Amino acid sequence: MHIAITGAAGFLGQRLIQRLLTRGALRGEPIRRLSLVDQVEAEAPSATGVECVALARDITAPGALDDMLDARPDVIYHLAAVVSSAAEADLDLGLAVNFDATRALLEGCRQRGLSATRLVMASSVAAYGGELPETLDDITALHPQNSYGTQKAMSELLINDYSRRGLVDGLVLRLPTIVIRPGRPNAAASSFASSILREPLNGEEAICPVPTDLELFVMSPGGVVEALVHGAEVEGDAVGPFRAFMLPGITVSVAEMIETLRDVAGQDAVQRIRHEPDERIQAIVGSWPTRFHTRRADALGFSRDKDFREIVEAFLEECR
Amino acid sequence: MHIAITGAAGFLGQRLIQRLLTRGALRGEPIRRLSLVDQVEAEAPSATGVECVALARDITAPGALDDMLDARPDVIYHLAAVVSSAAEADLDLGLAVNFDATRALLEGCRQRGLSATRLVMASSVAAYGGELPETLDDITALHPQNSYGTQKAMSELLINDYSRRGLVDGLVLRLPTIVIRPGRPNAAASSFASSILREPLNGEEAICPVPTDLELFVMSPGGVVEALVHGAEVEGDAVGPFRAFMLPGITVSVAEMIETLRDVAGQDAVQRIRHEPDERIQAIVGSWPTRFHTRRADALGFSRDKDFREIVEAFLEECR
Repeated sequence: MHIAITGAAGFLGQRLIQRLLTRGALRGEPIRRLSLVDQVEAEAPSATGVECVALARDITAPGALDDMLDARPDVIYHLAAVVSSAAEADLDLGLAVNFDATRALLEGCRQRGLSATRLVMASSVAAYGGELPETLDDITALHPQNSYGTQKAMSELLINDYSRRGLVDGLVLRLPTIVIRPGRPNAAASSFASSILREPLNGEEAICPVPTDLELFVMSPGGVVEALVHGAEVEGDAVGPFRAFMLPGITVSVAEMIETLRDVAGQDAVQRIRHEPDERIQAIVGSWPTRFHTRRADALGFSRDKDFREIVEAFLEECR
Repeated sequence: MHIAITGAAGFLGQRLIQRLLTRGALRGEPIRRLSLVDQVEAEAPSATGVECVALARDITAPGALDDMLDARPDVIYHLAAVVSSAAEADLDLGLAVNFDATRALLEGCRQRGLSATRLVMASSVAAYGGELPETLDDITALHPQNSYGTQKAMSELLINDYSRRGLVDGLVLRLPTIVIRPGRPNAAASSFASSILREPLNGEEAICPVPTDLELFVMSPGGVVEALVHGAEVEGDAVGPFRAFMLPGITVSVAEMIETLRDVAGQDAVQRIRHEPDERIQAIVGSWPTRFHTRRADALGFSRDKDFREIVEAFLEECR
């Protein structure tokens, strides 16, 4: 089992690598090789019996993924992306990374006859937008109101078509907002959703740029990593006529998130949140839906976090 | 008023040109110039006071639309496309014409600051597919089961995003199956839908490759041309958060089409239809939905054909 990961130096990539190595196998086969692609050389863990190859690559450069593909990976996790705020600020960069690189990856698989290779791409709740029903389902249209979501939706369509044509075995998982991310705030419009918990739990100040009645559809980092693992193992034929669907998140308001913080870490922690409305972030995050019937994902055996308190406690557990 | 048309030598392009010249004005302004782009030099009518420029261009070539865009058209009709069967047979050609050329057109508008230019693209019912509700509406997902529909759906997303960013004023009309097209059968999977009427009405044999209980969602050529004209005049702000929607067709079965042929031209005409099932065509056309609530189009003032008999009679009227 040879697994290639783009965006391998990122937060999700790194957690996925750890999980895969702990597991030792994927699709019933022992993991023999990891190809880790990122702009910078990804941290390649040393693991007995697993060859870890870190490739520093600009995936927007022609042929950037040639050597990775020449090694004929059995599973490719395509996690490399420009996040929502950055894609909104730079249309060309967003198109190059979030769409053109996906297309190049598909073409690379096609040219090498990698029809059995499972390509798992991370898409996003940000691909939804516009006029939406109270609760969305698997056949709700993607009418993204941001360039990041647009580029992801275009990539979904192309992965579906290449899979339908038998050129690759693709699967796209639309990720809920991931909470609580470790590390520092980033350029994602949803960065605050982790920040308002993570920083107070670490004794630091955080800024909340949205009204507290704003809801989010969230999933824990651990839950997302389990979904990525499961996404490699799901039978392609079982997925149905479209290879992209929403993962089962849970719906939570910012007020509920803050209440959970109060329960777990007390009023002192809550007081470290400063409320500074940011219309730009509100406009992006406010257009993302928060209630889904995720029948496709449920039927395929993807699971959801129990509740928001469990998400916060898992974060605290990891920090220890 | 300067109007540019890609695919101007095609059936829709030619009819649109005639309609525009008859009208003499668009968006309340007299038409002064028509730029007619196609692979071959489009038939450029001579009309008093209207400069008609025919440009023979391969729209997949870099810079192919530079001179057209340098002349800063007020309205662009983007009708050039590779049809469904052809796009299925040649993935690269389909992507180049149906997607990359649309992207190049958008980029050309962006680079020239043509933010007020109305770009009207023709999309298709073929962009729908997969698991669908009994009746579709404006927020039913596009899960195309063919490459043509995939490429159109990707173009829709990009036009919507460029419009949302204020880089162009785009509008995408999803066309029902156009019946009755004049001329000869072509590579479109839906070609038979015109052929089984047109050929018998002209005293010729036609092949019906689908079961007669198959339904289609259809619109007359005249209806589509009126929709294209109206699509240039609709206010962008009135369209709502997504710049693509289905036009109001009518639902008709192949059996009903044949009954109408019998009513209008007698049993002799009906006997000129040979039934030769073609699984490839059935698979493509059978995946297209046939029942829609077209609320967006209705609210914007797009109109539908009265019934199928009127469509047949309009064709006969034109033949005379």
